Amino acid sequence: VSGSAPAALWGGRFEGVLAPELERVNRSLPVDRRLWREELAVSVAWARALEGAGALVAAESAAIVAGLERVGERLGGWSEREWAEAGDEDIHTLVERLLFAEIGAVAGKMATGRSRNDQVSTGTRLWLMAAARRLDGQLADLQRALVGQAENQVETLMPGYTHLQRAQPVRAAHWLLRHVWPLFRDRDRLADAIARAAVLPLGSGAVAGCPYPVDRAFLARELGFQAISENSMDAVSDRDFVAELLFVVALAGSHLSALAEDVIIFSTSEFGFVRLSDSYSTGSSLMPQKRNPDSMELARGKAGRLIGELVGWLVTAKGLPSGYNKDLQDDKTALFGALDTLGAVLPAVTGTIRDMSFDAGACAAALDSGMLATDLADALVDGGMPFREAHEVVGRLVRLSERLGSPLDALSPDQVRGVSEALGAVDLAAALDPGRSVERRAVPGATAAAAVRDQLRAAGERLNRER
Amino acid sequence: VSGSAPAALWGGRFEGVLAPELERVNRSLPVDRRLWREELAVSVAWARALEGAGALVAAESAAIVAGLERVGERLGGWSEREWAEAGDEDIHTLVERLLFAEIGAVAGKMATGRSRNDQVSTGTRLWLMAAARRLDGQLADLQRALVGQAENQVETLMPGYTHLQRAQPVRAAHWLLRHVWPLFRDRDRLADAIARAAVLPLGSGAVAGCPYPVDRAFLARELGFQAISENSMDAVSDRDFVAELLFVVALAGSHLSALAEDVIIFSTSEFGFVRLSDSYSTGSSLMPQKRNPDSMELARGKAGRLIGELVGWLVTAKGLPSGYNKDLQDDKTALFGALDTLGAVLPAVTGTIRDMSFDAGACAAALDSGMLATDLADALVDGGMPFREAHEVVGRLVRLSERLGSPLDALSPDQVRGVSEALGAVDLAAALDPGRSVERRAVPGATAAAAVRDQLRAAGERLNRER
Amino acid sequence: VSGSAPAALWGGRFEGVLAPELERVNRSLPVDRRLWREELAVSVAWARALEGAGALVAAESAAIVAGLERVGERLGGWSEREWAEAGDEDIHTLVERLLFAEIGAVAGKMATGRSRNDQVSTGTRLWLMAAARRLDGQLADLQRALVGQAENQVETLMPGYTHLQRAQPVRAAHWLLRHVWPLFRDRDRLADAIARAAVLPLGSGAVAGCPYPVDRAFLARELGFQAISENSMDAVSDRDFVAELLFVVALAGSHLSALAEDVIIFSTSEFGFVRLSDSYSTGSSLMPQKRNPDSMELARGKAGRLIGELVGWLVTAKGLPSGYNKDLQDDKTALFGALDTLGAVLPAVTGTIRDMSFDAGACAAALDSGMLATDLADALVDGGMPFREAHEVVGRLVRLSERLGSPLDALSPDQVRGVSEALGAVDLAAALDPGRSVERRAVPGATAAAAVRDQLRAAGERLNRER
Amino acid sequence: VSGSAPAALWGGRFEGVLAPELERVNRSLPVDRRLWREELAVSVAWARALEGAGALVAAESAAIVAGLERVGERLGGWSEREWAEAGDEDIHTLVERLLFAEIGAVAGKMATGRSRNDQVSTGTRLWLMAAARRLDGQLADLQRALVGQAENQVETLMPGYTHLQRAQPVRAAHWLLRHVWPLFRDRDRLADAIARAAVLPLGSGAVAGCPYPVDRAFLARELGFQAISENSMDAVSDRDFVAELLFVVALAGSHLSALAEDVIIFSTSEFGFVRLSDSYSTGSSLMPQKRNPDSMELARGKAGRLIGELVGWLVTAKGLPSGYNKDLQDDKTALFGALDTLGAVLPAVTGTIRDMSFDAGACAAALDSGMLATDLADALVDGGMPFREAHEVVGRLVRLSERLGSPLDALSPDQVRGVSEALGAVDLAAALDPGRSVERRAVPGATAAAAVRDQLRAAGERLNRER
Repeated sequence: VSGSAPAALWGGRFEGVLAPELERVNRSLPVDRRLWREELAVSVAWARALEGAGALVAAESAAIVAGLERVGERLGGWSEREWAEAGDEDIHTLVERLLFAEIGAVAGKMATGRSRNDQVSTGTRLWLMAAARRLDGQLADLQRALVGQAENQVETLMPGYTHLQRAQPVRAAHWLLRHVWPLFRDRDRLADAIARAAVLPLGSGAVAGCPYPVDRAFLARELGFQAISENSMDAVSDRDFVAELLFVVALAGSHLSALAEDVIIFSTSEFGFVRLSDSYSTGSSLMPQKRNPDSMELARGKAGRLIGELVGWLVTAKGLPSGYNKDLQDDKTALFGALDTLGAVLPAVTGTIRDMSFDAGACAAALDSGMLATDLADALVDGGMPFREAHEVVGRLVRLSERLGSPLDALSPDQVRGVSEALGAVDLAAALDPGRSVERRAVPGATAAAAVRDQLRAAGERLNRER
Repeated sequence: VSGSAPAALWGGRFEGVLAPELERVNRSLPVDRRLWREELAVSVAWARALEGAGALVAAESAAIVAGLERVGERLGGWSEREWAEAGDEDIHTLVERLLFAEIGAVAGKMATGRSRNDQVSTGTRLWLMAAARRLDGQLADLQRALVGQAENQVETLMPGYTHLQRAQPVRAAHWLLRHVWPLFRDRDRLADAIARAAVLPLGSGAVAGCPYPVDRAFLARELGFQAISENSMDAVSDRDFVAELLFVVALAGSHLSALAEDVIIFSTSEFGFVRLSDSYSTGSSLMPQKRNPDSMELARGKAGRLIGELVGWLVTAKGLPSGYNKDLQDDKTALFGALDTLGAVLPAVTGTIRDMSFDAGACAAALDSGMLATDLADALVDGGMPFREAHEVVGRLVRLSERLGSPLDALSPDQVRGVSEALGAVDLAAALDPGRSVERRAVPGATAAAAVRDQLRAAGERLNRER
Repeated sequence: VSGSAPAALWGGRFEGVLAPELERVNRSLPVDRRLWREELAVSVAWARALEGAGALVAAESAAIVAGLERVGERLGGWSEREWAEAGDEDIHTLVERLLFAEIGAVAGKMATGRSRNDQVSTGTRLWLMAAARRLDGQLADLQRALVGQAENQVETLMPGYTHLQRAQPVRAAHWLLRHVWPLFRDRDRLADAIARAAVLPLGSGAVAGCPYPVDRAFLARELGFQAISENSMDAVSDRDFVAELLFVVALAGSHLSALAEDVIIFSTSEFGFVRLSDSYSTGSSLMPQKRNPDSMELARGKAGRLIGELVGWLVTAKGLPSGYNKDLQDDKTALFGALDTLGAVLPAVTGTIRDMSFDAGACAAALDSGMLATDLADALVDGGMPFREAHEVVGRLVRLSERLGSPLDALSPDQVRGVSEALGAVDLAAALDPGRSVERRAVPGATAAAAVRDQLRAAGERLNRER
Repeated sequence: VSGSAPAALWGGRFEGVLAPELERVNRSLPVDRRLWREELAVSVAWARALEGAGALVAAESAAIVAGLERVGERLGGWSEREWAEAGDEDIHTLVERLLFAEIGAVAGKMATGRSRNDQVSTGTRLWLMAAARRLDGQLADLQRALVGQAENQVETLMPGYTHLQRAQPVRAAHWLLRHVWPLFRDRDRLADAIARAAVLPLGSGAVAGCPYPVDRAFLARELGFQAISENSMDAVSDRDFVAELLFVVALAGSHLSALAEDVIIFSTSEFGFVRLSDSYSTGSSLMPQKRNPDSMELARGKAGRLIGELVGWLVTAKGLPSGYNKDLQDDKTALFGALDTLGAVLPAVTGTIRDMSFDAGACAAALDSGMLATDLADALVDGGMPFREAHEVVGRLVRLSERLGSPLDALSPDQVRGVSEALGAVDLAAALDPGRSVERRAVPGATAAAAVRDQLRAAGERLNRER
């Protein structure tokens, strides 16, 4: 090993040293160190491409590749402390320095024809593609927990709500499955986002393209990309893939927040439909009786943070002039922040759902006869009355029932007939039966047992197919 | 025509009237009136589906369909004033009232088995699908304007920038095309968003599904949907399609903002690379000489508003309990606001780009020899020096050039050799020639003439294919 | 009247006409027409200041002032249609055109030394100052509704919640007052925002300041400002006052959303603590029994929109170069949108709260003895046990109670003593009495009757003082 | 030391242990460890207040205070590793555990009458108050750097821009000072935010208030608060102080972004008005000539992140039910994130500004005569022509000048008179003199030398006063 490794990759044209005030915000190693594996993979592929382009001879390329391998072994063993002590500007500088330590001046040939601008976009895309696939697996785990619960709750009836007011009876399995489908949409969006991220920027140089005839299609294949970027200036400016992933993550977070809100409300003493397990409940430092749904509240709350990460990035990226601008450095902070947050919350949500138990009695007790008012109107419709009129008639019956403080199914035949003769002809017990109500709703997507079993089957098949 | 039309669709169970303070915020007709055509189409399909389900006899269905047709004719002729005077709660109430006026009490049968919850989601999706296709056409128009300009600017060289500092020479066509590819990504995302919106919620009722055996697949075909929703509770809660479209629109807006920032800067007196036409420039009420790029500033600024619409909606939708909640009513405000905003800005941007002229002389004058420093380093690399060392050597030459206040191409051979013997051996004139620099960058996506012409061809073909 | 009014304020240096595509987004009259009164007031003051500066003779100034008065009368009588037909670029152009129609060419002297840049900021600030004061009044109305309810609910006990789990008993008045204090903070912030907006930009010209010796302190006094801007370039660039108001409005919206969430949950069938009046409830088009808290859901949902308005504006304003940029034109869209939204929601919230009734029985029934666990631990503390140990002991009692399915107050003395001897010594009936529990909390801000009455008094006095 | 310290503060009522999936997201120590000094201060004050309330005897209180002191010494010496190995749930649990290790079971008495709900809000407010004061100092440092530069640039003339088009000449000092005043507004807002944060929640317990007669006014004085909270339920729910600080920080970030945008543009090769020092410039890994304004780009970009932090928090806090909810735990992530970000950026911006140099020649060269068009129109006004007409006349002269490719000051007298006789009578050389132009603008806040010196004096005095 000969020569001296450069402290920075670009010092030559300046007098003096970088001000520490600037260095503190300029250094990105504490963030982009997470890209070290990708940086090495990109560099190995690049060395080979340079050899193919005649810019490196085989021995140089081989030395670089072997050196990068040793750098990888070294970094793989680094402790937190060693990372903290590395003073390099960024992961690119660190790797080049370590490579220099391994193989000497030939390390300086790896930089031929490329720039940190195309490198970092390539590495970040690689990282994102893998992280998004891990996230997909976590979302599927949550779906499985929901489907697993749903399989046991087909026979449990509970109120379906609109405006958080009791609306119509549904099967508890139907409610659980209601949270499965949004996650399929999330996973679809995730797949689209991965596909759009899988476009190789490497070979774009700083802005004008690489001046050596590297085979970009080869690079794409080597690194697992599906296509190559079409314009070098766009390639180094583009962070759409970051924005799109942040959006998909934020929307998935929003879906968790909706599930969380349901569970928080359903596990109150007042609703009491579900109960969280001890291992997914927390207590109070002051109040000995408390059983708090912290995982659900965190899921609900973190959706805010995820929206914040999306917004922060959209704002930073907005209105930037063409070409790489340092503003873009924040992309990784946003990306890592969002994926770490969702990645930590998801297992807690999955475990909570998996271990949650239902109180079928409490669910059944909540099915007051007022929730069958639509079915009663439908019974009038079956007798030939237009629905709008039937709605009005039953509305008057509800008003009477409230005035008397008596549920619909406790009104006397005379009271019912007093509201409307047509109502008197209806079989009230049948119309006000929750079991009959759910079974009447048998179209695809509805809450009858067969339709719910179809849903379960469809969800299960799709989960297996995409495993 | 007999019977009296209901003032609201749901008054029966209440005493008294709605407080005007509530009515003012509750009424959505001033917003959702834009969905009237979709509301009619949905209702026609629904009447036919009810007939198929045996819930209407053929004569009833025919009367409803004919009546809806007449309602459509009537609404098609309404003035602003007639819309303003309609006091109905929403578009659903208005259409049912007008239908009642046409065909009497049988109008009340149209409401059988459906709810505003599934109706409004169906209508909004239909509207969105059409609006998104219009937006796609507008984005393509802008792409054509950029490609049209690029075809004439292949031979124009200008500085490519990073950090807004001159970096390397590029073809002006390359810069223009740099703004074409992000719009293809936007249109891809738009197509994905349309596909995911094309899932029919109709038949989900209020929350538990429709109690009549309507053929939902028939409804989907009739209305132009690709699939039917899988869970009625999800169907009435889901507004993912709104969020996704708002995101796609916001990101497209961000791309316009980047184009705008470039044009604003390039059309300053100091840069002077492009000049906006008189018909796309505005003046000052005070300063007679001003020629302002208002369309570009509006495009840049509106990206903020578009992000705001996205955020507003994400926040509103976050953490809502399952089932329809009134909070969701704001979806249309956000959707219409975003699409109107981008739909108004795009033609102004397209026109500005189409009519813009280049000052090739100013572009050329900006190509100072400092921008060829990378090419100079590459020349050293061609002589066997590792790039990192070449970078350092040229950096020192740049430092000397700055100290002497003399451009690189004006340094004497002795001065050059004083920095490095190796530099003395390089053909400086060749290395510092912008024309040679761009032609060296010939890989796909780079700025050599052939590569740019490939880009032009690829963009043109894709534009024709997707027309 | 002689001469011809200019179509635009700045056409002289351009050939041809503005492209309709640009005009469509460039015209702001449909938005800034709301500033017409402010525009007139600013112009009257300006004419007087110009006279003071010797730039107008008294007759000219008088003609302008009289003309503006007539323009004001005319605009005051304009119908929607007349506004729609006015094709002017903005409110400044319209007023100058109408003034020209009234007084002829001397109207052109009003433009001396000012620019739309300082004008529009001045007019917008004036509008904001008045609108913010109206908003303050609406917030106070809501406070009065809450205080009014609280006065009647001092004796009603209900559960206080944390994590939406029952925590400790509180007085219902305490819960109501909990929503009063955030509104005082909002009003404080509003007052601060108004004070910071009350800085006069007029006299800053386009960017460099006014070249005529107008008395800016006179202008400030005339128009109701508290100070004059210190730097003309800052004055025409600054929209802090917009951002700050949007923030205050968004945070107030967030407070409404929290109140709304409470009321939505407390008015469910399951909680049943409060009941909305018929005139502040809405129904369902499908389900005759529904009683929906739409006003509360709208309040909760609109908080999203208000955050969106804030964000949109912050994004637009970020990173703009110094001096007026057209991006700033969107400030009024955001400002009007936010204030209209909150201004419409507040009366509906106030009415809902005012007309809401409490079900004291349902509140009392929810006070299960588990909520007194802290008081039980405190009883142990009073006997000398460290709180942390007492918490553990009571926690074990709670566990036993859950295992046995028996409330704390139904456990036998033996069962209690079995958990801890110390517990056996405690007067359980006293410790588990909700009335005693609330009275123990008598420090300022706590829920004992006297403390709540102090709160009521303090809130009432402040409301009267600030009226 | 006797007894065993509890692992968690609340385990008693649960079977088994917390699931690791939940613990991972539930634990906040890695974030809230930064509050350890505040936690100790709060606990010391609380022990004294409990003694005052008779809930602790003097010996107990003294033991606790002494123990806390030793805990403080211990934590003050902790390494990163010791912090990483502490497995406690949060800072409260850690401190209580360490205190137990110091003084045994009496440590458990410190928890009497308080809850983590009021503790954490108190500690966070304390931290915020100090951090905001540090931020204020950093903002003042930047102001001093700007004022320092301005003092040397009163005589330098440069273009003032609107729409990034040259508008009117201004003094460079005027431009620099334009960035000083927004920072005074930020510091005003910061002071307001601190004052509103200085309200003590301690003594609010979990939600219903403290059951022991602690002297809350004493606590407020001890800890440096200005007032006590008025409602215990509001006190534990309220995070307005977080939102307000995040807003103030985001707006300050926006001001930095505007300064950054100016400097980035002014330091381009094309503008060339300012040059960053070597120690505040960075280079390129590829292009040896690059001199990049990274500190300015980071300042511009981080404004996005700061807006994201604000939004994330506003979203999380929106729509939460009353009382502490776990969602609130994220407040510290947002707060620390925002203050760390701005706190790191500010010194880099300050240093960049302080070390930046002006190129007075480049500034002067940019003052083309077109920028004096307003002054020319004013000269016509001085001759009695209404400004609007003068504007039109000069506009025509500008058009001629552009057609001829000849600057205004190079047109012949005949050409000038050909546009307008009145123009022929004007002293063109005087009207088109930049020095005269700036001196004509002498009102307060304008760009004449005396006005700028007044500005400098006012800013300096205020900086000294607030030091």
